[in-house]
Amino acid sequence: MAKPLGFEKPLGMRDILPESLAKQRHLERALRHCIERWGYEEISTPSLEYYDTVGMASATLTDRMFRLLDKQGHTVVLRPDMTTPIARVVSSLYKDVPLPIRLFYQANVFRAQEKEAGRNAEFFQTGIELIGDGSVDADAEAIALAVFCLRAAGVETFRIAIGHVDFVDGLLEDVVAEEDVRQQFRQYLHERDFVGFRQLLETVAIDSAGKKRLDALLRLRGGKSKIAEARELAGDGKAGRAVETIASLWESLEAYGVTEDLLLDFNLIINLNYYTGVVFEGYAADLGSPLLGGGRYDQLLAQFGRSAPATGFAIKMDRLLTVTPSLRGQAPERILLLYTEDRRPEALAKAQQLRADFQVVVTRLVTGKAEIAAESGQGYSKVICMTEQEE
Amino acid sequence: MAKPLGFEKPLGMRDILPESLAKQRHLERALRHCIERWGYEEISTPSLEYYDTVGMASATLTDRMFRLLDKQGHTVVLRPDMTTPIARVVSSLYKDVPLPIRLFYQANVFRAQEKEAGRNAEFFQTGIELIGDGSVDADAEAIALAVFCLRAAGVETFRIAIGHVDFVDGLLEDVVAEEDVRQQFRQYLHERDFVGFRQLLETVAIDSAGKKRLDALLRLRGGKSKIAEARELAGDGKAGRAVETIASLWESLEAYGVTEDLLLDFNLIINLNYYTGVVFEGYAADLGSPLLGGGRYDQLLAQFGRSAPATGFAIKMDRLLTVTPSLRGQAPERILLLYTEDRRPEALAKAQQLRADFQVVVTRLVTGKAEIAAESGQGYSKVICMTEQEE
Repeated sequence: MAKPLGFEKPLGMRDILPESLAKQRHLERALRHCIERWGYEEISTPSLEYYDTVGMASATLTDRMFRLLDKQGHTVVLRPDMTTPIARVVSSLYKDVPLPIRLFYQANVFRAQEKEAGRNAEFFQTGIELIGDGSVDADAEAIALAVFCLRAAGVETFRIAIGHVDFVDGLLEDVVAEEDVRQQFRQYLHERDFVGFRQLLETVAIDSAGKKRLDALLRLRGGKSKIAEARELAGDGKAGRAVETIASLWESLEAYGVTEDLLLDFNLIINLNYYTGVVFEGYAADLGSPLLGGGRYDQLLAQFGRSAPATGFAIKMDRLLTVTPSLRGQAPERILLLYTEDRRPEALAKAQQLRADFQVVVTRLVTGKAEIAAESGQGYSKVICMTEQEE
Repeated sequence: MAKPLGFEKPLGMRDILPESLAKQRHLERALRHCIERWGYEEISTPSLEYYDTVGMASATLTDRMFRLLDKQGHTVVLRPDMTTPIARVVSSLYKDVPLPIRLFYQANVFRAQEKEAGRNAEFFQTGIELIGDGSVDADAEAIALAVFCLRAAGVETFRIAIGHVDFVDGLLEDVVAEEDVRQQFRQYLHERDFVGFRQLLETVAIDSAGKKRLDALLRLRGGKSKIAEARELAGDGKAGRAVETIASLWESLEAYGVTEDLLLDFNLIINLNYYTGVVFEGYAADLGSPLLGGGRYDQLLAQFGRSAPATGFAIKMDRLLTVTPSLRGQAPERILLLYTEDRRPEALAKAQQLRADFQVVVTRLVTGKAEIAAESGQGYSKVICMTEQEE
């Protein structure tokens, strides 16, 4: 016989075995039931997209995409996210559907990995997009729905942090003259490197009032009271308008009854260039990486020729799996039905009766006492013997 | 503004819009509930596999696979089927799990298309694999489960045709001396080209008794009575043993109560080289292409070093969609809740009450009478106005 084939999988690719997958499906169902009640409808888009369309518009770096040539010689990519394909659909197949449009997805997305570091190159997301509503109420809906999703999934302790890109941008524009320096500050915030931020603050040439304002920015993380602090810091410009948006947003979120699970974070930066307004990120206790991320992206749709404001979020299912209760003990009971050949018709008919009664039944043909004795029935709640020996 | 990006998708790729997808999800649930009762557990494997492992072992031609180079310079493929990755798992992660093993999947697989001909390059399958049971009872289980799946999906009229590769092979070996001529006969059967088969039969140098037997083969399609006809034609060799297997199989299938949905087809050939025993294919009325295909593949597992008999089937979900009843009228009722800013807290709280009561609610902020009047409420079963005007 030839040498057996290997078992290796490409970097970052993984099998999901039944126990984990059952839990993932359980969570997907819980999220789906929650999201559908808000009027969102599920959509599916292809795994492969042209690089020149979805690839170009995606917030993912080209270098992180899986690329290949199709038989017609075009560069195609494995979808790096679902938001961009949905923007494509809303601008083409859905071009005559009036806005706002509410869509959701439960799908896998791809991110090429360079090193063996336990990072997934393919991961599952559940996400929503609310397209064509620029009001602060749309931002509130996305955030409230994110809270209800995490509650529906059974995440015990979590917080969703809320920020606004214009607050940081406005403050930096007020205080720092050079765009490249502003970008350095943003980068530190994005990486949550407050030490680096403060070191930069000490070295740059800005007046002490400005330094105080930027230093105060780092402390703008907390409950409702941070709105007043932020207002004081912001002035009347871009940053000030962002504070008023957040104030109005908070009122809506109070109406939804979700503020106990929220945190204001005026220095939150999720993605350096993609989001255009309110942004948010969900964290569970004891999990360093965010469970979900989302926010307003009012520039994406225009790239496909149907200019429209939009907001949405995506939940990372593999992370959600790690912070939700085990299903152990909730698996349905399984019956093992052993039979010998002479009683086959009777045994198979019995199995069908039990299945019609919603029971889980595995049947097994056995040939003699030894084989029956070897059947430990492990993993089964009940073993039924329909064998010669029984009579 | 820059020229908008295009909307094109790679050849054979498609979006599945909410109405179709809701039906697909409904069918997936129906199939899952059916399959789980037979003790099968769901598994997920990666979209990308190494060409040197799963690609090599797959029954799909290399030329029909989507291939790419990963960052480490290996050739990877988009999985062409789910059976081969599952064989990989059973031989590696599951190497210590005792046989038989029952697994199922609901997943997308890929097949590169060369021409625009409406063929999907990515399609969804629901399938099962029963690995490590070489008995005819395992074949019966796979076929009976296929019947119950199509019933559960609501396919009104269907037949599953059953054959055995050894019957055709044995008969051809008895009658035709040259392997290449036998292969030509097989090819005609595979393509269901009985005219070509008969023309070949007339031109080849075999005796008239042999010609009669091969011609009779084409008529071996029907109910239980075909078993006796096949027995007469087969002799005692390979073909004869195949007939006895089919006879025993039929008894099991009678015990399952599924024979009214079955058809014996002794000239059935599904794939030229992959299957090793009982094969079957499901057809719905008015659908030219098969809904499902399956059979015994006892050689695949050995390629991964864990030699084991196996059987299974896959249902093509896009075809199943076309032969099952519409869900129209079964969509949940949707409520549209319009509100003005002054009544926002009250309106959003009301929406949450309704959702907690399992109702589907879409909320919309409106600013004046004109906008309210413009809301036709199309697609909603009920419109609730919580606006200034109401008071």
